[in-house]
Amino acid sequence: MPIRNIAVGHYHEATQPDALRAALAEFISTLIFVFAGEGSGMAFSKLTDGASNTPAGLIAAAIAHAFALFVAVSVGANISGGHVNPAVTFGAFIGGNITLLRGILYWIAQLLGSTVACLLLKFATGGLETSAFSLSTGVGVWNAFVLEIVMTFGLVYTVYATAVDPKKGNLGIIAPIAIGFIVGANILVGRCI
Amino acid sequence: MPIRNIAVGHYHEATQPDALRAALAEFISTLIFVFAGEGSGMAFSKLTDGASNTPAGLIAAAIAHAFALFVAVSVGANISGGHVNPAVTFGAFIGGNITLLRGILYWIAQLLGSTVACLLLKFATGGLETSAFSLSTGVGVWNAFVLEIVMTFGLVYTVYATAVDPKKGNLGIIAPIAIGFIVGANILVGRCI
Amino acid sequence: MPIRNIAVGHYHEATQPDALRAALAEFISTLIFVFAGEGSGMAFSKLTDGASNTPAGLIAAAIAHAFALFVAVSVGANISGGHVNPAVTFGAFIGGNITLLRGILYWIAQLLGSTVACLLLKFATGGLETSAFSLSTGVGVWNAFVLEIVMTFGLVYTVYATAVDPKKGNLGIIAPIAIGFIVGANILVGRCI
Amino acid sequence: MPIRNIAVGHYHEATQPDALRAALAEFISTLIFVFAGEGSGMAFSKLTDGASNTPAGLIAAAIAHAFALFVAVSVGANISGGHVNPAVTFGAFIGGNITLLRGILYWIAQLLGSTVACLLLKFATGGLETSAFSLSTGVGVWNAFVLEIVMTFGLVYTVYATAVDPKKGNLGIIAPIAIGFIVGANILVGRCI
Repeated sequence: MPIRNIAVGHYHEATQPDALRAALAEFISTLIFVFAGEGSGMAFSKLTDGASNTPAGLIAAAIAHAFALFVAVSVGANISGGHVNPAVTFGAFIGGNITLLRGILYWIAQLLGSTVACLLLKFATGGLETSAFSLSTGVGVWNAFVLEIVMTFGLVYTVYATAVDPKKGNLGIIAPIAIGFIVGANILVGRCI
Repeated sequence: MPIRNIAVGHYHEATQPDALRAALAEFISTLIFVFAGEGSGMAFSKLTDGASNTPAGLIAAAIAHAFALFVAVSVGANISGGHVNPAVTFGAFIGGNITLLRGILYWIAQLLGSTVACLLLKFATGGLETSAFSLSTGVGVWNAFVLEIVMTFGLVYTVYATAVDPKKGNLGIIAPIAIGFIVGANILVGRCI
Repeated sequence: MPIRNIAVGHYHEATQPDALRAALAEFISTLIFVFAGEGSGMAFSKLTDGASNTPAGLIAAAIAHAFALFVAVSVGANISGGHVNPAVTFGAFIGGNITLLRGILYWIAQLLGSTVACLLLKFATGGLETSAFSLSTGVGVWNAFVLEIVMTFGLVYTVYATAVDPKKGNLGIIAPIAIGFIVGANILVGRCI
Repeated sequence: MPIRNIAVGHYHEATQPDALRAALAEFISTLIFVFAGEGSGMAFSKLTDGASNTPAGLIAAAIAHAFALFVAVSVGANISGGHVNPAVTFGAFIGGNITLLRGILYWIAQLLGSTVACLLLKFATGGLETSAFSLSTGVGVWNAFVLEIVMTFGLVYTVYATAVDPKKGNLGIIAPIAIGFIVGANILVGRCI
C-alpha cells in the first residue's frame, strides 16, 4: 500500500451532514461495543462476588469483546468505516485515509459513546462500579507497555490488511469478523498477564 | 435511509400463499431459535441442579443463543426476512419495510413457534419447567427496563445496518452472523445483571 | 422448492470416477468431523476422570462439533455436497437431489469415515473407550425420540435453506457455518437432557 | 486437482521485493498467531498456578488458536497466501504451488515470527516460561505421532479444499475461518490426549 498524504482537512468538514452522520455511527458502534464488553465483565464480577479473573470469566470476556466488536465494526462499516477504537482512527489518519479533523470528530464520538455505555451500565445494574484495567502482580509498566503495543499492532494491522487495503478483494467480506476476533483472542492473553 | 411510508396493507394479503409461506418460515425460525436458546438453559439448570447462573452456564447460554439466532435468521432470510424476534418485526414495520397486517401475521407465527418449542422441550425433558427471566437482587424494574431498551436497540440497529439497508453491499453476506452474535454478546451482560 | 423426482439411479453410477471421488470426500469429511467431535468428548472424559457432563465439557463439545462440522461441510461442499451426516444424505435423496445409489455410496463412506476416526482416536489415546450416547435419568425413549426429531429437522432444514435451495443467493457463502453452528447449539440442549 | 510440477525456483527469487514482502507477511502472521495461542496458555497457567489443563483452559486455548489463526491467515492471504504453519508451506510446495526456495524463505520467516512472539510474551509477562507440549500419561510416542498426522492432515486438507483449489468458488471467502476453526476443534482433542 503506498504511503498517502496526511491531511488536516477543512474546518467546514466537521459540520457537514456526512461527517456528522459518520460521527454518530462511531458513537453508536462504540456504545454497542463498550456496553457488551464492559458489561460482561461487570456481570461476571457480580456473579462471582468480585473475582472476575477466573478462567470462565476470561472466556466470557473474550467472547463478549469478539462478538460485540465484530458487530460494532459491521454496523458502522458503510457509514464511518467502523473504527470503534481511537487507535484505529489514529492509524487511519497516519495512513492518510481520513483527515485530522474527521479523526478528532471520531475520537470525540468514541469517547462519548464509551461514556454513555458506562453510564447506562451503571444505571442498569443499580449502581455497580465499572471496572478498570490494572496491572497484575509481577508485571511492571514497561511489560504492560510492550503487551499493549503488540496487541494494538495486531488490531491495526488486521484493520489495514482486511478492511482498508484496496487490493483486499473478497477478504473485505469477513473483515469485521477478523477485526473482532483478533481482539477476542488477545483478551485471552492480556487480561490476566 | 429515507423514511418510508407506514402501511396497513390489505386484508387479502394475509391469505396469499406468499404471506403464509413467510409466516411459516417465521414459525420454524422462531422454533429453532427458542428450542436451542431455552433448551440450553434448561439443560444447564438440570446439570447443575437449578443453579443455571454459573459463569459456564452464561457462556453456554451466550453461545447457544448466538449460534441458534444466526441460523434462524439465515434459514428465514430469503423467505420472510428472518425476523425471529417480534421487536425486529415491529422495527421493520416502523421503517416501512412490511405492512401492519403482515407484521401481525409474523407476530402470531413467532409466538406459536416459541410456544411449540417450549412444549417440545417440556416433553423431551420428561416434564422439566421452562425457565423465565427474573430480576436479580439489587436491580429494580426501571434498571431492567433501561437494560432491555439498550439491548433491543443494539439488535434492531444491527438488523437495519446489515440486513435492511439497501446500501449494505457485501455486509449483507455476514448479516445473519452479526444479528446472532450481538444477542450472544448481550446475553453475557443481561443474564445476570 | 418444487418437489423433484425421486430417482434410483443406474448401477454404473457407483463406479464412475465422479461418484467415487464424492464418496472419498464424504469419507474424509466424516472422518474430520467425528475425530474432533468424538475426540473432544474423550479428551474431556479423560481430563475429568470420566465426568464428561460438566458445564465446561458441554461447551467444549458444542464448540468442537460446531467448528468441525463447519469445516467438514466446507471441504466437501464442492465435491460431494458435504453431507457428512446420513440424515442429510437421506434428506437430499427425498428431495430428489441425489439418486438412491449415490446416497447408499455416501452412507457407506460416512460409516467408514466415522469408524476409521474412532479407531484412530482409540490408538492415539492409547486405548481409551470411545463413548456412546445414553439416556439421562428421567428421560424415556419417546422423549429422546422427539428430541432427536426436532434436532435432525433443524439440521436438515438448515441444509436445505442455506445450501440446497437454488434461490439461496449469497446465503450459500455462509451455509457451512450455519450448518455447523446449528449442531453446536443443539448439542448444548441435547447432550445432557 | 491435477498434480502440478514441483519446482526448486531460482536463487534470484529469494531477493525479489515480492518474495521478501511475502516473507514479511508470514513473519507477522505467525507472530500474531503464536502470540495469542501461546500467550493464552501462559495466561491460564498463571491464573491457575500452573494447572493449564483444566476444561476451561482447554476451551480458552481452542478459542484463542481458532480466532488467532483465522486472523493470521486472513491478514496474510493476499500477500503470502497466509500459510502461518510450516506444514502448510510444505504442503503447498508438494502440490507445486510455491517453489522450494520460497518455501524455505517462508519457513525462516515463520520460525522467526514464532521466536519473536515468545520473546515478547516472556518480556510482557515479566519472565514467565513459555510452555511446550508434552505427552500425557498413558500415551506413547507412536500414539502421539498418529494424532499429529491426523490433525495435520485435517489442516492441510482444509487449506487445499478451501483456499488453494482453483474450483473453490465462493468457498474461498470463508476459507480463513475454516482453517482457523479446524485447528481450534482439534486442540480440544489433542491438548489433553
